[in-house]
Amino acid sequence: MSKTTWKLIDTTLREGEQFAKAAFRSEDKLEIARALDTFGVEYIEVTTPAASPQSQRDLAQIVKLGLAAKIITHTRCILDDVMAAMDTGVRGVGLFFATSRILREASHAKSLQQIVDAMGPPIEAALSAGLEVRFSAEDAFRSEVSDLLAVYRAAEKLGVHRVGIADTVGIATPRQVYALVREVRSTVKCDIGYHGHNDTGCAIANAYEAISAGATHVDVSVLGIGERNGITPLGGLIARMFSLEPQVVAERYRVGQLRELERLVARVTGIEIPFNNFVTGETAYSHKAGMHLKAMMTNPGAYEIIPPEAFGLTRRFILGSRLTGRHAIAYRAREMGITFGESELKAITRRIKELADAGELSEAQIDEVLRDWVTA
Amino acid sequence: MSKTTWKLIDTTLREGEQFAKAAFRSEDKLEIARALDTFGVEYIEVTTPAASPQSQRDLAQIVKLGLAAKIITHTRCILDDVMAAMDTGVRGVGLFFATSRILREASHAKSLQQIVDAMGPPIEAALSAGLEVRFSAEDAFRSEVSDLLAVYRAAEKLGVHRVGIADTVGIATPRQVYALVREVRSTVKCDIGYHGHNDTGCAIANAYEAISAGATHVDVSVLGIGERNGITPLGGLIARMFSLEPQVVAERYRVGQLRELERLVARVTGIEIPFNNFVTGETAYSHKAGMHLKAMMTNPGAYEIIPPEAFGLTRRFILGSRLTGRHAIAYRAREMGITFGESELKAITRRIKELADAGELSEAQIDEVLRDWVTA
Repeated sequence: MSKTTWKLIDTTLREGEQFAKAAFRSEDKLEIARALDTFGVEYIEVTTPAASPQSQRDLAQIVKLGLAAKIITHTRCILDDVMAAMDTGVRGVGLFFATSRILREASHAKSLQQIVDAMGPPIEAALSAGLEVRFSAEDAFRSEVSDLLAVYRAAEKLGVHRVGIADTVGIATPRQVYALVREVRSTVKCDIGYHGHNDTGCAIANAYEAISAGATHVDVSVLGIGERNGITPLGGLIARMFSLEPQVVAERYRVGQLRELERLVARVTGIEIPFNNFVTGETAYSHKAGMHLKAMMTNPGAYEIIPPEAFGLTRRFILGSRLTGRHAIAYRAREMGITFGESELKAITRRIKELADAGELSEAQIDEVLRDWVTA
Repeated sequence: MSKTTWKLIDTTLREGEQFAKAAFRSEDKLEIARALDTFGVEYIEVTTPAASPQSQRDLAQIVKLGLAAKIITHTRCILDDVMAAMDTGVRGVGLFFATSRILREASHAKSLQQIVDAMGPPIEAALSAGLEVRFSAEDAFRSEVSDLLAVYRAAEKLGVHRVGIADTVGIATPRQVYALVREVRSTVKCDIGYHGHNDTGCAIANAYEAISAGATHVDVSVLGIGERNGITPLGGLIARMFSLEPQVVAERYRVGQLRELERLVARVTGIEIPFNNFVTGETAYSHKAGMHLKAMMTNPGAYEIIPPEAFGLTRRFILGSRLTGRHAIAYRAREMGITFGESELKAITRRIKELADAGELSEAQIDEVLRDWVTA
């Protein structure tokens, strides 16, 4: 796998605006754009100015922030939309056509040749204006591979910087993604973007396999917000890549800001961060079963492949459940300056488990049991 | 991919009890077990009786329910634990040893040969008692493949029904899972189980790739609850498999019960169902962008690969956002018995987008705009 070439296109302000609960005000968009830039994403994709008058004004204002991230938009592959994008000062534009039969019929009613013919003028206009141009095939995984390769070749011939492979309906499986990206990689020389929805829970895995196969750019959004149940979440992909290339990720992104970034987007959209969120989730560093606790007390790498400190987080040992173990209890006792013999430790652990059967013990309650045991 | 051989082992009542926020009361366990059985999972895995006195009583009581699902437990690979399991009347038992170097050192301090030697008596005792026996390698993806294959061969020689491959720390990538399961598939003839954590967001994809490579059993839990941020969620894997084998899934499981099952576990553990949950999530069938709405109004398969009706759910069209389109507006107008000409439709859509820039319009507000337009 290429270790340094993948880049993140955060599309919280475009795909994320298609989330049912997102109705961003201008000040929300500016705040999110600044936070994304602080985090370090390479691109920030914003809703097309063609969407509405305020969308146009907001995009122009985000461009004026002068952020380090490239501000781009994603719009229909028509000249009017490209012109409107150019007027806002964006650095790049993503253009697209659906290539699957079902979407071609239900959406734009164009044949493959008509798609190829229609691509020319908008792509050429964007390139002439000096924009970085991506051309994406929408619904790539329900499209004929020969059709996909034909439009990608046509786009490359026109001079696009990047072709985009979009799993618009969340149907792709990881090995399918890997195979298709490899196929595209051997067909075009330009960069390759991947965009994947999460309907069947594979959006993080698929984005990772796309990178493994040679994709250079991956679309993400904060908490994965987007149409339906969304796309590859930024934090999830960061966790995936951090586990494999910790230094690359830690050097490129301010991962200590991830939790705040997620909180910002959760607040603005009125959602709760999922209980099982990757890395930053409330219980992601909670350890509970006795065998887990024992090993964690010896070596935190035992059950943690991403150190919480790297993300400004802390772990938590839950000692007071019925699943606790004698090693965990001994550990707490030692912290309190108490040492038990082996048979006594077994007895006290049994007692704590019995008590915990009626409801988990707090740390104070465990300490009390331990103190009472030695003073009884 | 084998189309009919995979089976679900729901471990909400074992792995799920290791979730930081789970402290199941006896009545909760019984209710969850009944609901899982109604849903149709083939196995229900429950906390070992060795954990605590109430764990023992609860397991025995769940066995007595006489459910269609096989009740099994998962316990240390020691004779005492197997005996305690047998006493409860379970149909099967999962036994395990960590095989990775890091966990062997931090956990049980056994060499590979010591593991193989220690496996014999508990496995033989369980088999003699007529139990279905699984032997799992904990932390398989940080273990040497040669070590893994050695313990699996030893387990098969002892006569286990199934070997288990556990991604205990959530580190595996989809193609790694596929490759390892294929390797194990070509090494042993018995069944193969897969258990995967979700630390890096690949638990659903990995479970799917395990099935593709020949795994016969997959561990899931309702909403994925388990240690840290959990494991493969039942609903997520059901979504993944439904998209590929809809008839198999619909015939085997009462998928219309999924939402209630998730609500039950969310209520008992005091968590909120993730906003972006698969299939049953609040917005999983919400469609918002104009181009999406247009295609969905022509063919619901355009942006939905799993029909919501199959799960007793309904879709929602969001017409009042700044991302709406003229086809969506025309659709609503037609429903109201109003027909607009093309230029008029463009003007009214522009007007609705302008209004939506100040805040999303409700259905009633859109209807009012449309009515006002024709009566003005």
